[in-house]
Amino acid sequence: MSKPVDNAVSTVRAYIEDHREAFLDDLAAWLRIPSVSAQPDHAPDVRRSADWLAAKLAETGFPTTEVWPTAGAPAVFAEWPSGDPEAPTVLVYGHHDVQPAAREDGWDTDPFEPVVVGNRLHARGAADDKGQVFFHTLGVRAHLAATGRTAPAVNLKLLVEGEEESGSPHFRKLIEDRKERLTADAVIVSDTGMWSEDTPTVCTGMRGLADCEIELYGPDQDIHSGSFGGAVPNPATAAARLVAALHDEHARVAVPGFYDGIVELTDRERELFAELPFDEEQWLRTAKSHATFGEAGHTTLERIWARPTAEVNGIGGGYQGPGGKTIVPSSAMLKLSFRLVAGQDPDHVEKAVTAWVADQLPAGIRHEITFGAATRPCLTPLDHPALQSVVRAMGKAFEQKIRFTREGGSGPAADLQDVLDAPVLFLGISVPSDGWHAPNEKVELDLLMKGVETAAHLWGDLAESWAEAP
Amino acid sequence: MSKPVDNAVSTVRAYIEDHREAFLDDLAAWLRIPSVSAQPDHAPDVRRSADWLAAKLAETGFPTTEVWPTAGAPAVFAEWPSGDPEAPTVLVYGHHDVQPAAREDGWDTDPFEPVVVGNRLHARGAADDKGQVFFHTLGVRAHLAATGRTAPAVNLKLLVEGEEESGSPHFRKLIEDRKERLTADAVIVSDTGMWSEDTPTVCTGMRGLADCEIELYGPDQDIHSGSFGGAVPNPATAAARLVAALHDEHARVAVPGFYDGIVELTDRERELFAELPFDEEQWLRTAKSHATFGEAGHTTLERIWARPTAEVNGIGGGYQGPGGKTIVPSSAMLKLSFRLVAGQDPDHVEKAVTAWVADQLPAGIRHEITFGAATRPCLTPLDHPALQSVVRAMGKAFEQKIRFTREGGSGPAADLQDVLDAPVLFLGISVPSDGWHAPNEKVELDLLMKGVETAAHLWGDLAESWAEAP
Repeated sequence: MSKPVDNAVSTVRAYIEDHREAFLDDLAAWLRIPSVSAQPDHAPDVRRSADWLAAKLAETGFPTTEVWPTAGAPAVFAEWPSGDPEAPTVLVYGHHDVQPAAREDGWDTDPFEPVVVGNRLHARGAADDKGQVFFHTLGVRAHLAATGRTAPAVNLKLLVEGEEESGSPHFRKLIEDRKERLTADAVIVSDTGMWSEDTPTVCTGMRGLADCEIELYGPDQDIHSGSFGGAVPNPATAAARLVAALHDEHARVAVPGFYDGIVELTDRERELFAELPFDEEQWLRTAKSHATFGEAGHTTLERIWARPTAEVNGIGGGYQGPGGKTIVPSSAMLKLSFRLVAGQDPDHVEKAVTAWVADQLPAGIRHEITFGAATRPCLTPLDHPALQSVVRAMGKAFEQKIRFTREGGSGPAADLQDVLDAPVLFLGISVPSDGWHAPNEKVELDLLMKGVETAAHLWGDLAESWAEAP
Repeated sequence: MSKPVDNAVSTVRAYIEDHREAFLDDLAAWLRIPSVSAQPDHAPDVRRSADWLAAKLAETGFPTTEVWPTAGAPAVFAEWPSGDPEAPTVLVYGHHDVQPAAREDGWDTDPFEPVVVGNRLHARGAADDKGQVFFHTLGVRAHLAATGRTAPAVNLKLLVEGEEESGSPHFRKLIEDRKERLTADAVIVSDTGMWSEDTPTVCTGMRGLADCEIELYGPDQDIHSGSFGGAVPNPATAAARLVAALHDEHARVAVPGFYDGIVELTDRERELFAELPFDEEQWLRTAKSHATFGEAGHTTLERIWARPTAEVNGIGGGYQGPGGKTIVPSSAMLKLSFRLVAGQDPDHVEKAVTAWVADQLPAGIRHEITFGAATRPCLTPLDHPALQSVVRAMGKAFEQKIRFTREGGSGPAADLQDVLDAPVLFLGISVPSDGWHAPNEKVELDLLMKGVETAAHLWGDLAESWAEAP
């Protein structure tokens, strides 16, 4: 049994090696497009990114490539039928939009001018998520080269959305509207990461996300803190007191109803977490942080993978310029986000937070709260057979035991599961040090090529497992 | 007794009426100079403002006018000897720098292009403090015109500093260095306000001010709130928790030692406060606020005049742009200011706050705290005879009973008292609706002219009281 596998592995590797340079040049061209979905002035760039990808997928060989408009940024759809009437259909999901990035945020180089430093490719989107979408292009070509096929062993579909970094506000509607075209037997989400370079892993779940912006209004304009200070409510103080009240003394979220319905970790899941070679000092270095801190009674891995959070992403109010300005500010703002885990309902969380905020504020402080589109939490059953295909394909690429993790971040995987009624699996090669959403984001080139290899092995394995399934 | 007074009043009024237009044109020219001391790029404007004022005082008739450099912005000194060897010496204090102002802060017009709307002159500095410095120029001319003198009845000195809105960091050193030139029998501070247009008042004290900026550092860069959120400390949360902890449930400042040494209000002082026609609804309108809020057990007037405060002037951290950014921010900042009352020592408050902040922060959050130069609190004894001169001069101008207030704001009056060993009196005609430090700052033109009249009557009264003093 081992000979054909080894042959396939070496054929795939040789093909990838031959095409590596062109693949990286193409990826760099895509990374140069600043497809920041959160910033309205980058809307033309997000559209350009979609057009670029559609053209590149056509060049890759996909007979069908389409740019799908939404009420926001467009998504890219591509389809490559197997030709085999028995072949399963797989939908690969990723996104082509990126987080905001500016040189002054602390980047060593222009975030939209990719540079290779050693074995790393630095650019906004290198890992999250353009790199991980793009490995499927060379992956499917290597699959064809290694198998001598002219079409993939599965009916391959790609859906690459343009608003993931803005909370996918139109994604649910898009996939509902296009459900017929998107029908699949399994969904492969390529927007997650692995434990580390040395410990390849498959992710089995993502946290959900609800986020809101709260504007707090006090005096109708900034007023003199000498003339009025001490006798009127200060909206910056009110904002701060809200944030301080978000957590109790055990660092648990103090919003009543927040934990309703939550699915607690099983003993087996805790064991799998504990099997991983977690080194707190090293994790802190990756987190660029100087201490751990979080909900009492849980390990760091449990806190980031399986426990919900309330986080301040931004706070502002009053005078932030040089020197002092002795005012009671007129307004303040908060950007809060809540990571959600299996069992939590985003609508319920939104209602709970809305009621809690209104209840916390003193007389004289008016407020407005606006929620973005929520992302549901998602969990793949550990015993799902398709998970084994992913594990085997990764095993061929990495030649190591593949372990299990979860992802603390969020994606619209749960919507795909709901709407398409298909199991969702995760295939990602990013590592925590890649700096998602941070300055100097990068992807490890060796891992990126392992991603190509995994994709090259996956379609044959999945088609075979499907044929063998009862 | 009443005839000569009436004659003086009408002569003064006629003189002022004749010179009103030129006076307002000159003031407008000065207000056009954006002498913002807190913003380094306005340093040339602050110097230009000093030069302009020195030239104008020379034109007014002051035989000596000098621009005094400091390590920061320059002050203006002017001197006009009485010629009478028995005459007392009076030092008038004000400042020629202004608070920051920008059209986008909510101004209806350019803050540095004065406009008269009805009976109000709008410009940054119209009330705080250029208008109230400037009324002394026409005041002393009217005094000469009404008395037939060629020099004032007192030895008149003016000291107009250029860094009051930045906490007067070099003022103490300046007056210590120039103590010989500044020697005076009394100091008149023209940088305060009155109760209202209908209730003219003399101020008997100012609060002091200590302020600090606190920088809080968490992760070395912004990190992904999905990958790391819930397991590391967030500096924006730490900033918010500091602010929330500043006050206890009675809205008292919770920093241990903050109230040490404080002089409590006497029953007589509470009575004088209670005599004023305080209308909470009207006060709230002036404060542009929608509720009162403050230390339990005290009235609003007591809170703003005689109780110390801790106020957030600015807070910032993380992403404040459009849309969302799901990060744990790398840093956050706070600008806090503390109003101080008689008996509080700014150095002691600084030490107390510094120790308290260090004690509050969780592991993994590094901080830096920087205090600006403090301003001491100041209180004029109610029974001081010179206070009666001010009251009489105002009485002639306003033809009403003059009542007593305090000022919630802060000025370097206490330093003048300390260094020059002279009583400090307050003469101000600004009203609370003037919008100090706020957009659309203005001065009421009728009150500005009453200021001129008061200044015109004051020097003769003071010289006479001095001669009659035992």
